[in-house]
Amino acid sequence: MGGDNAPGEIVLGAVRAARELGLRVALVGPRATLEAEIAKHGGRPEGITIVDAPDVIEMDEAPAQAARHKKGSSIVVGLKLVKEGRADAFVSAGNTGAIMAAAIMYLGRIRGIERPSIAGLMPLSGKLSVLLDVGANADARPVYLVQWAQMAAAYMERVWKRERPTVALLNIGEEEGKGSTLAQETYDLLKESGLNFIGNLEGRDLPFAKADVVVTDGFTGNVVVKTMEGMADYVMGEIRSAIKSRPWYLAAGALLMPAFRQVRKKTDYREYGAGPLLGTNGLVFIGHGRSDARAIVSALRVAAESARSGMLDAIRDTVPAKEAAPALAADEPPAEGASSRSS
Amino acid sequence: MGGDNAPGEIVLGAVRAARELGLRVALVGPRATLEAEIAKHGGRPEGITIVDAPDVIEMDEAPAQAARHKKGSSIVVGLKLVKEGRADAFVSAGNTGAIMAAAIMYLGRIRGIERPSIAGLMPLSGKLSVLLDVGANADARPVYLVQWAQMAAAYMERVWKRERPTVALLNIGEEEGKGSTLAQETYDLLKESGLNFIGNLEGRDLPFAKADVVVTDGFTGNVVVKTMEGMADYVMGEIRSAIKSRPWYLAAGALLMPAFRQVRKKTDYREYGAGPLLGTNGLVFIGHGRSDARAIVSALRVAAESARSGMLDAIRDTVPAKEAAPALAADEPPAEGASSRSS
Repeated sequence: MGGDNAPGEIVLGAVRAARELGLRVALVGPRATLEAEIAKHGGRPEGITIVDAPDVIEMDEAPAQAARHKKGSSIVVGLKLVKEGRADAFVSAGNTGAIMAAAIMYLGRIRGIERPSIAGLMPLSGKLSVLLDVGANADARPVYLVQWAQMAAAYMERVWKRERPTVALLNIGEEEGKGSTLAQETYDLLKESGLNFIGNLEGRDLPFAKADVVVTDGFTGNVVVKTMEGMADYVMGEIRSAIKSRPWYLAAGALLMPAFRQVRKKTDYREYGAGPLLGTNGLVFIGHGRSDARAIVSALRVAAESARSGMLDAIRDTVPAKEAAPALAADEPPAEGASSRSS
Repeated sequence: MGGDNAPGEIVLGAVRAARELGLRVALVGPRATLEAEIAKHGGRPEGITIVDAPDVIEMDEAPAQAARHKKGSSIVVGLKLVKEGRADAFVSAGNTGAIMAAAIMYLGRIRGIERPSIAGLMPLSGKLSVLLDVGANADARPVYLVQWAQMAAAYMERVWKRERPTVALLNIGEEEGKGSTLAQETYDLLKESGLNFIGNLEGRDLPFAKADVVVTDGFTGNVVVKTMEGMADYVMGEIRSAIKSRPWYLAAGALLMPAFRQVRKKTDYREYGAGPLLGTNGLVFIGHGRSDARAIVSALRVAAESARSGMLDAIRDTVPAKEAAPALAADEPPAEGASSRSS
């Protein structure tokens, strides 16, 4: 039920993922609404089940409150499927803050992880890199950024098969010693982290996928991904209106359509689906509010690949044994409560 | 002597400003080098003088050290002309950090201003707005941001004739209460500031000039302007190579050239010259490292207009009398020292 195009495009994406990729997808939402949508696509395909969730958390609702009180919402019901082991991953294009809050509330944090983080997808230069945090943690500490880098490196390695993923720090200069106190202290920690740390990157490097993983605080990260999106929209929009300003431009523009589409395809997040929420006890993917059927198909494909890849265990392994000790006893039954492992 | 295109383009810009706009420009740098450049343009025009400065501060030198020790550099010699009242404004496309450090050292801060700030020019949608701080202050406090907004509003009002300039806070959501601790506290101060505060703007709003002045910390600001530049370069570059990929695209692309140029012109910082350094006792403008003759002409024109406009006094008036008291006694002689007014 999440995002600007719900439920139509979301249901269509799920139906396609079931038909074309053979995935088993539980659609979570008001049953009658979902059944009506499915009926439009020639009936319920094998692999699609419906899990009733009568409530909807709107895009502009206060996240923590909605997560706590709307227990019948598609977000809460869906996350509980993951918690109970009835689903391998949760995908939504809904209210980011509410998904994040509900995931921490119902799945819990991975022991030793200070703050879960949302990784933003930067699908530029025809290659994926991830930027985090993109908004979950507006105030950050150096140790958070290092953990985000470790988790995102595990994601890029397991799911996108990058060997020794490169990690960079977003900063305001290339040299060591540059930047805010946060950036300087994080630089020192990243150097000692054992990660494949390649140093600082600047804003102008971001479109060129110079590192697999780029870390920054959640304030800067959120502003930056939205700026990139805004600039791409702006430049393409300006070109469109310049072309419309003369009839002969229009003709030339029509000839160039495939070239423009080629550019758009290289920068299309929909190829990569949805950004992973890293640090909770379960796989959660948060799609762009604008997600259409194609983005949902990709998100479901990546979610399934993430489940198969052992990414969650790889992330758990990034936390030093000391901090994670209580949950590492091999035959301990799954602990209860918000910050325990649910394996 | 500053920037990627010095001294050639810088001297050419000064010569044009003298010839076409009738400005009086002192060129500061190694005399023989400057004379050789001027000779290329048909000899020294009326209005151009040369002030010898044998040293050069390179683009990658440590700013504070260079400012302190290279007393014969074009940056230090030029700023001293302003300090001594022999020039109305200083324009450079050189080492930003060194200009900033030298300006604080030799001109001094305006009394009551906590931290001078560099305003970045965002020439988008065919309209100028400014973003600050763009790199001088990686760690910021709420009161700094409010002072930057006040100074930038004075600049936009006096120099660009905007009536009651609109001020926005760069943030990660539109609603009040969003963002980092810094953003939240700044929001509260801006509401009470008497400025024409219109609330939060997000990254995606930046290309659309929704406010005359946008404030943020120097870390986020620097990352964001470089991201915007990088994205614009990236999208235009991708379109260029897509067009080159087929002969018939090339033909259509050639037809569209004027349309592309129209887009480029609307996003061209060179129309607006150089970003003002706000908060020092004297007018200082810091140009893009890539500045060419056209950018220098604009920068000199805007610098002259700034001097005429009384902008510096307007900025001094933004500081509450209490804080500025010692320097406000009408007939007090100009005080000496780094943080005094030099009027």
